[in-house]
Amino acid sequence: MSIGFQLQARDGAARRGVVETAHGRVDTPAFMPVGTAATVKAMRPQDVAATGAQMVLGNTYHLMLRPGAETVAELGGLHRFMAWPGPILTDSGGYQVMSLAKLRKIDERGVRFRSHIDGSKHELTPEGAVEIQDLLDADIAMQLDECPAAGRPRDEVADSMQLSLRWAERCRAAFRERAGYGLFAIVQGGMHDDLRRESAHALTGMDFPGYAVGGLAVGEGQAEMFRVLDVTVPELPEAKPRYLMGVGRPLDIVGAVERGIDLFDCVLPTRSGRTAQAFTHGGAVNIRNARHRRDPRPLDPACGCGVCSTFSRAYLHHLIRAGEMLGPMLLTEHNVFFYQTLMHRLRDAIAAGALADEAARIRAEQAAGDIAPMEAKA
Amino acid sequence: MSIGFQLQARDGAARRGVVETAHGRVDTPAFMPVGTAATVKAMRPQDVAATGAQMVLGNTYHLMLRPGAETVAELGGLHRFMAWPGPILTDSGGYQVMSLAKLRKIDERGVRFRSHIDGSKHELTPEGAVEIQDLLDADIAMQLDECPAAGRPRDEVADSMQLSLRWAERCRAAFRERAGYGLFAIVQGGMHDDLRRESAHALTGMDFPGYAVGGLAVGEGQAEMFRVLDVTVPELPEAKPRYLMGVGRPLDIVGAVERGIDLFDCVLPTRSGRTAQAFTHGGAVNIRNARHRRDPRPLDPACGCGVCSTFSRAYLHHLIRAGEMLGPMLLTEHNVFFYQTLMHRLRDAIAAGALADEAARIRAEQAAGDIAPMEAKA
Ligand SMILES: [Zn+2]
Ligand SMILES: [Zn+2]
Repeated sequence: MSIGFQLQARDGAARRGVVETAHGRVDTPAFMPVGTAATVKAMRPQDVAATGAQMVLGNTYHLMLRPGAETVAELGGLHRFMAWPGPILTDSGGYQVMSLAKLRKIDERGVRFRSHIDGSKHELTPEGAVEIQDLLDADIAMQLDECPAAGRPRDEVADSMQLSLRWAERCRAAFRERAGYGLFAIVQGGMHDDLRRESAHALTGMDFPGYAVGGLAVGEGQAEMFRVLDVTVPELPEAKPRYLMGVGRPLDIVGAVERGIDLFDCVLPTRSGRTAQAFTHGGAVNIRNARHRRDPRPLDPACGCGVCSTFSRAYLHHLIRAGEMLGPMLLTEHNVFFYQTLMHRLRDAIAAGALADEAARIRAEQAAGDIAPMEAKA
Repeated sequence: MSIGFQLQARDGAARRGVVETAHGRVDTPAFMPVGTAATVKAMRPQDVAATGAQMVLGNTYHLMLRPGAETVAELGGLHRFMAWPGPILTDSGGYQVMSLAKLRKIDERGVRFRSHIDGSKHELTPEGAVEIQDLLDADIAMQLDECPAAGRPRDEVADSMQLSLRWAERCRAAFRERAGYGLFAIVQGGMHDDLRRESAHALTGMDFPGYAVGGLAVGEGQAEMFRVLDVTVPELPEAKPRYLMGVGRPLDIVGAVERGIDLFDCVLPTRSGRTAQAFTHGGAVNIRNARHRRDPRPLDPACGCGVCSTFSRAYLHHLIRAGEMLGPMLLTEHNVFFYQTLMHRLRDAIAAGALADEAARIRAEQAAGDIAPMEAKA
């Protein structure tokens, strides 16, 4: 029953493992491209798979509003609907309700809100969130939780964490157990060590098949995020996968893997692809910059993706300047591939017991910066 | 020298042939997807090739303004720049100057205009248009011509046609002859039979390696277009390829192939893909229409493209409604594939001496209309 998780290697706190779901396996540490509205933006599913990604994330909030969970179910579930045969994790919708929906009202029962699309009224309860994710056919579903806004006073963060614990219990009771499907709990507690420990301890006692760390990457900075992980992760069971929600930049991921995180998702590689930002072995590159206008070299000479082996910086620059859709398409493809390459390197390094060296190498590459501009022509 | 053209079969006035260029062969009748700014919009070049397209069209006007012909040449030419290793035809830029540029002024020498992008001043002469297309490394270049606006009086159309003839001579003199590269002339003369014949006769006397019919698909209607082809095409040499510029809808192409046209280009399959319009074996389909919202069937059940074998109408409808980039991407891919399938059918039918039957079948399919809507659920 539930999902499987095999730990294959350890290196310090870091782990190399395999998550087994109804729709296939995921090698961890893994990065899930975000497919908000049943599409990883600007990529066909076969091209997402070709980057090495094994699992994608779907957003319950978006999908419940459009096209609707019942419609997705009627069309064979999210895998068939979006033609992604591999594993899918969905969030609970709670985070997006708080950040996107209008006139939201939260209480013990759940959250009532109006759609940001058409103003229609909706309610999301712990039981409803589980049911919707069941209709979507998510391999991994997330409990409904409340993620308090950054900077709230400690008592509000504590109350919110306690509410999320009660919702975790209700989600667990509502979840339909079956082989290859699992429900993950979410540790909350803001930046407070004792609240984080209390949340992790209580959730561990409920015996979920996986645990997420929520409420991070909300502007607290990398050092503070790592500090919270240092406090939280040791409280989680070794034998279960750990998911750091919404993180992050490449070096955020490296540091979190070193601290024992197994799963990641973030909009950065896809969103940045639509704003001319590329992640490369030499750090971030803004391809709109005029320095690339006549540069025949690949976006990232160290990258093995189809974009870098085919197109020049000059061409990518041209596409962005001309407002051509192919620009975001190619940058997204490269960025998603770059993230998958990063995870591959981390997995191999853990398996080889060489994570410290590889992490140092990745940090040095990122710090070295982009390749030097071309010499001006005589 | 120049490009090659082998006629392999005839069926009535229709021809099955092969155009041979420096960058490969093109089976005719052929449809060229339009790659205005060095990209077939919303498609990677490898995906364009996978539809069966063998040659694409680039727009000289757009490319001379951005990124500039010298820049393209410095980066290895248009094939390398846009990663399209196959044949490329470029237009002369004249038509787009007339439709897009500002403050244009035309005289014997050429046309002066301001860029619609940044207002910068430019000039396009017959010699300059040839030189720019040489810098772009177009396998097939087009002469600079003037295409008078629809509804101009006969004497203006005649003057314009004569100017285009003089420009044809100048382009021919300026063209650098080399194996696998060719310059096509453009027949003008509006809807006037005698002017069309005069233009065709004069250009034939100059012995170009190919002849285009310009000035059609400007709002004259299909019957009038076919009438002009009936007058013009018989005046063109049998042994040279014939190109009908900017045409068209599927049944325009069928009728023009029946009249002896070998090459086509049109923005319709790509532009329509960006406005939720699909071309199918059952005619045009607007996937934004609410009837598709829960329809699990493929966009075109008779289509063999990757979109139709993978995604439902409901999913495509969802993507368009949600404003997801993947919607235009997939509709464009299908549309370009549909046009290539159409050309394949026409080529096979000509080779088999069965064009009349196949054309009748295609017309019947298009007239039959879209598949019936799904039954409402009980
Ligand atoms: Zn790359
Ligand atoms: Zn199709």
